Amino acid sequence: MTGSTARAKLNVGLIGVGRLGRIYARDLSTRIACTRLVAVADVDRSAVDEITGEFDVPFGTTNPEDLISHPSVDAVVIVTPTSTHRAVTEAAAASGKAVFCEKPLSISLDEASAIKHAVERSGIFFQMGFMRRFDRGFAAAKQRLGEGAIGEAVVFKSTSRDPFRPSVEYADPRSSGGMILDMGIHDFDLARWFMGEVATVQAIGGVLAYPELGAVGDIDNAIISLVFTSGRLGVVDLTRNGIYGYDIITELLGTQGTLRVGYIRETPLLIMTKGVVAHDTVPYFMERFAQAYTAQLENFAQNVLHGRQPPITVDDGVQALRIAVAATRAQHTGQRVEVES
Amino acid sequence: MTGSTARAKLNVGLIGVGRLGRIYARDLSTRIACTRLVAVADVDRSAVDEITGEFDVPFGTTNPEDLISHPSVDAVVIVTPTSTHRAVTEAAAASGKAVFCEKPLSISLDEASAIKHAVERSGIFFQMGFMRRFDRGFAAAKQRLGEGAIGEAVVFKSTSRDPFRPSVEYADPRSSGGMILDMGIHDFDLARWFMGEVATVQAIGGVLAYPELGAVGDIDNAIISLVFTSGRLGVVDLTRNGIYGYDIITELLGTQGTLRVGYIRETPLLIMTKGVVAHDTVPYFMERFAQAYTAQLENFAQNVLHGRQPPITVDDGVQALRIAVAATRAQHTGQRVEVES
Amino acid sequence: MTGSTARAKLNVGLIGVGRLGRIYARDLSTRIACTRLVAVADVDRSAVDEITGEFDVPFGTTNPEDLISHPSVDAVVIVTPTSTHRAVTEAAAASGKAVFCEKPLSISLDEASAIKHAVERSGIFFQMGFMRRFDRGFAAAKQRLGEGAIGEAVVFKSTSRDPFRPSVEYADPRSSGGMILDMGIHDFDLARWFMGEVATVQAIGGVLAYPELGAVGDIDNAIISLVFTSGRLGVVDLTRNGIYGYDIITELLGTQGTLRVGYIRETPLLIMTKGVVAHDTVPYFMERFAQAYTAQLENFAQNVLHGRQPPITVDDGVQALRIAVAATRAQHTGQRVEVES
Amino acid sequence: MTGSTARAKLNVGLIGVGRLGRIYARDLSTRIACTRLVAVADVDRSAVDEITGEFDVPFGTTNPEDLISHPSVDAVVIVTPTSTHRAVTEAAAASGKAVFCEKPLSISLDEASAIKHAVERSGIFFQMGFMRRFDRGFAAAKQRLGEGAIGEAVVFKSTSRDPFRPSVEYADPRSSGGMILDMGIHDFDLARWFMGEVATVQAIGGVLAYPELGAVGDIDNAIISLVFTSGRLGVVDLTRNGIYGYDIITELLGTQGTLRVGYIRETPLLIMTKGVVAHDTVPYFMERFAQAYTAQLENFAQNVLHGRQPPITVDDGVQALRIAVAATRAQHTGQRVEVES
Repeated sequence: MTGSTARAKLNVGLIGVGRLGRIYARDLSTRIACTRLVAVADVDRSAVDEITGEFDVPFGTTNPEDLISHPSVDAVVIVTPTSTHRAVTEAAAASGKAVFCEKPLSISLDEASAIKHAVERSGIFFQMGFMRRFDRGFAAAKQRLGEGAIGEAVVFKSTSRDPFRPSVEYADPRSSGGMILDMGIHDFDLARWFMGEVATVQAIGGVLAYPELGAVGDIDNAIISLVFTSGRLGVVDLTRNGIYGYDIITELLGTQGTLRVGYIRETPLLIMTKGVVAHDTVPYFMERFAQAYTAQLENFAQNVLHGRQPPITVDDGVQALRIAVAATRAQHTGQRVEVES
Repeated sequence: MTGSTARAKLNVGLIGVGRLGRIYARDLSTRIACTRLVAVADVDRSAVDEITGEFDVPFGTTNPEDLISHPSVDAVVIVTPTSTHRAVTEAAAASGKAVFCEKPLSISLDEASAIKHAVERSGIFFQMGFMRRFDRGFAAAKQRLGEGAIGEAVVFKSTSRDPFRPSVEYADPRSSGGMILDMGIHDFDLARWFMGEVATVQAIGGVLAYPELGAVGDIDNAIISLVFTSGRLGVVDLTRNGIYGYDIITELLGTQGTLRVGYIRETPLLIMTKGVVAHDTVPYFMERFAQAYTAQLENFAQNVLHGRQPPITVDDGVQALRIAVAATRAQHTGQRVEVES
Repeated sequence: MTGSTARAKLNVGLIGVGRLGRIYARDLSTRIACTRLVAVADVDRSAVDEITGEFDVPFGTTNPEDLISHPSVDAVVIVTPTSTHRAVTEAAAASGKAVFCEKPLSISLDEASAIKHAVERSGIFFQMGFMRRFDRGFAAAKQRLGEGAIGEAVVFKSTSRDPFRPSVEYADPRSSGGMILDMGIHDFDLARWFMGEVATVQAIGGVLAYPELGAVGDIDNAIISLVFTSGRLGVVDLTRNGIYGYDIITELLGTQGTLRVGYIRETPLLIMTKGVVAHDTVPYFMERFAQAYTAQLENFAQNVLHGRQPPITVDDGVQALRIAVAATRAQHTGQRVEVES
Repeated sequence: MTGSTARAKLNVGLIGVGRLGRIYARDLSTRIACTRLVAVADVDRSAVDEITGEFDVPFGTTNPEDLISHPSVDAVVIVTPTSTHRAVTEAAAASGKAVFCEKPLSISLDEASAIKHAVERSGIFFQMGFMRRFDRGFAAAKQRLGEGAIGEAVVFKSTSRDPFRPSVEYADPRSSGGMILDMGIHDFDLARWFMGEVATVQAIGGVLAYPELGAVGDIDNAIISLVFTSGRLGVVDLTRNGIYGYDIITELLGTQGTLRVGYIRETPLLIMTKGVVAHDTVPYFMERFAQAYTAQLENFAQNVLHGRQPPITVDDGVQALRIAVAATRAQHTGQRVEVES
């Protein structure tokens, strides 16, 4: 992971140190050999202090713009609430700083377009965060598919299950974009990565487990079917009531075989008692995708350092969002919806 | 399976001794203690001779009506092509014979209604064949659900994969009703059994692996989403290109947990060579559901012998067909379709 | 399983209708096309009546000799207590009847020699019962090994676990031969089948879970290591406190890979609740080896009908017993013991 | 893993930067928040340069004594060849430095005693390396056992398989102590940890896959049975020809259930092609125990920083060695050997 020739280091400023941001802080400062975490920004002063203290980060601020414009910062990693992605990206574009931006790009296509224009106009390096592509399981599936292990992939299936209800504040569609966008954006990105562009979507959804989510206008279960422009098929099912654990399963049905990515057992221990064999489950996304998050950030840093193109572009962010927005509309209207492109 | 008190035997006439009919012949004559296979009918004379010879069946004919009216026959098991179900059932109704009828009831709702009327008018015992309900896995799931193991089931998922293409003749929608009906009827019956009635369906499908199926107007992959009258959700995905094996998976997502039924390993042997662990797969439905087929026929016989009501009625056959017909229409039109009831 | 050309039937007399004998009665009368169960003997009159009634068996007796000498009986299946094997076999030898004898052949080498001499002197067909060889998993392993899938097998490992304590009467070494013989005889037969003859054994054992077994001189756990005449290695571990289920696992470590036979999940249902994925277990040997028992009896019948040699001979019974006796002695003495041959 | 209160850092000198030492260098410098890698020693100058360069280590030397006596070094991590453990530990004891020492302590009981005396006389902190105890699977098993999940553990089983032959130089018993010691030391430590002290051992072994190992006096397969002082039983089997992958399985059979630790699938990808389901395997110990190695070093550092007792002592190292030495003698002599204590 940390090759011995990786001498050059990228000086990174991290904006947002909530749940995921803290993992990024740890990765950028201790796990990834080619990065140096030189600045941290968050609206929460105490969070900034905590992270700068723990990881010896020289600069901390509650103002993202100060971080972006700081001369020691070569690249910016954005893990802030989605609604701020546009402003932060535009500031980075203005400063000519490289950007890594967590998914989703935004929750509206207008904002997404604005971000895209800012990136294109400024010419900054911009890499979208879709960590599943860096998971060893998904990466291996991509490689095997490319090698022809299952012939042509003709059906895409993807399941995402959260083990518990998000907070009602988090789930509010005005900030989250709604469950289909919030959870499904990963599956839609995988759909495109493995299969190509989506032409039309249909969707059903409902409030089946947590009525309090309905009170803020969200749903807790959805099933979205996809027709790709190639005529191939896909289906994504999303649930907030995974209950047993965090379960992510993706299948590619091909003309010569099938690839299935996923696992639900966390610890290599079987407990076998009278008539029952049991094991534990994957708690949540940090456990499931720890390796992927680290690999993704390292990839970002290496790309910037070596002048490579980003493997996941702002367009990938826009396009996944288009599917999510179309699917959300399809769920609302009960109609088939075309995905613009 | 064969209780020691099961003295009374049901004299059964079997109509249709194709692939599945032969298994029924074996079960009725050797596996099930409470049945006696006393007559066999099939349009294929040599098949009749073969079965009557192998299992010492006293009466064989190429004319189903002769079998139905034969005085030694108390009950009729119908495993003929779907298009004949109406005529055979009507003849059985006229003779007052008990009927077990393989799925699907028919491929048209008109025929299904005619069968239903014949059954109701005559008052004969009529049991629909949906063997999955008798599979130990599905039966255990039903029991666990009833015990509250996962709270309320709110999402139904079901996958059916055939390991190879059917013959083009078999697949022809004029006789098979099309893939959504031919394969999905089992999943639709499970959907109703576990979750209740279906209100609306949406469906997508395509010819993705076997162009020759398109030539006769069929498809080889489909995804059908279901909204139950309760507002709960379901999704069924069907494929002819299972390739790796016969894979049937059903999941019930509940408010407190999930039940998952299915397996794909046939033989308890792992072959572990350099960097690879491998095992075989379930070949086809006869292997996967051998236990279920036998249990279903025995249940039929016991019900007739003891004057019990059929657990799967002609209405169940009609209602599963309604979902299948609606889903087929939804796939053709791209629109959401209501399921009549 | 029951080919359509199997016209000839073998008339079988079954001696012993305890737990396993009843399964044999069902198999011989209903599951196996080429056998006819024509006589049943057991010291328990009511058991005889029950079986003859259930399966329409024409002749029932409490005297095995009457069954053996009955003119309608072509072949005898022996499922009686081990201590009777000699007498029954000698009577069958005197009558020239073919014999299938359940394992173990006997619990003493003297008795085993007597049986062997009776068989050889009379020239009767004699097939030893070791049903694991007919299990699809073990059979597939044998075939794969023969095909070179793992190179040369150099280490044999076998685990047998009973899910609960046997009755103290059953366990009494004076009738059972002790746990190493009672349970291990299957593993020792597999060891020979896969690897060849055993030269020396070492063993440890103890009363660790059920003190009441110690009171009659038996143990409840044992580990036996084997050195084959080829210099290759083996280990067998046996336990009465499987508790979670009936677990049989055999591994062959080869120079190019490993074969592993075994499974512990009975029903294809996963129950997934908060933090836990669970499934049931295999209850006991009748469930685990149902297919193997039927296949073995059918094989016996086909061999007799077609004049084929038995695949498992009286010598196989003697040789497995020699290992068991040596291992029992090794456990008692703590010394390495040579296996006579 | 890296708690925010972990302000104090331990200045560590690492002696030995071979295969495992490099992982330790990475962990000490980047993965573990409470350690600082301040010095590196190895007889290989270029390895020293490489590591000091990659991880910005201020001091590098080819002379371990220089490292040990260096004022910036608070604690020493020893990953050198086993034959040097005594000299390095004695030097550390003389300098009063805390020591973490990789297994095995030594290959001779005399050397082990010398190390033990040096540690005890000097009073230095000394922690033995047995990383399996820090693996989440083994740690969870220990906890479950303590909670009574399986009643009393009465049988211990442990399997260790290497995926390929070691170099002949490495395997030479004069430096490795022979395969039973080299591989089995982990299993013997687990045996003690879970079950208590071992009273006697028996062992068989052979050169079955790699004749070249026999040429230097080593073996490639062994089976060791253990009787604990409590009378409970154990068995350890070791193989160099794992071939398919690195497979470590430990089972504890209890009076109320069984715990099984182990897994062999590395990547969460199933490849399903015609009749076959396949997945990859765990390559080797660095992959299987990456988490454990890191956790173990962090535990060491925290213990030193907070003045806690080592969870694995020099006595644990001595005692595991005693079992290994006895087992090796048992394999040579064919006799049961008592384990001194």
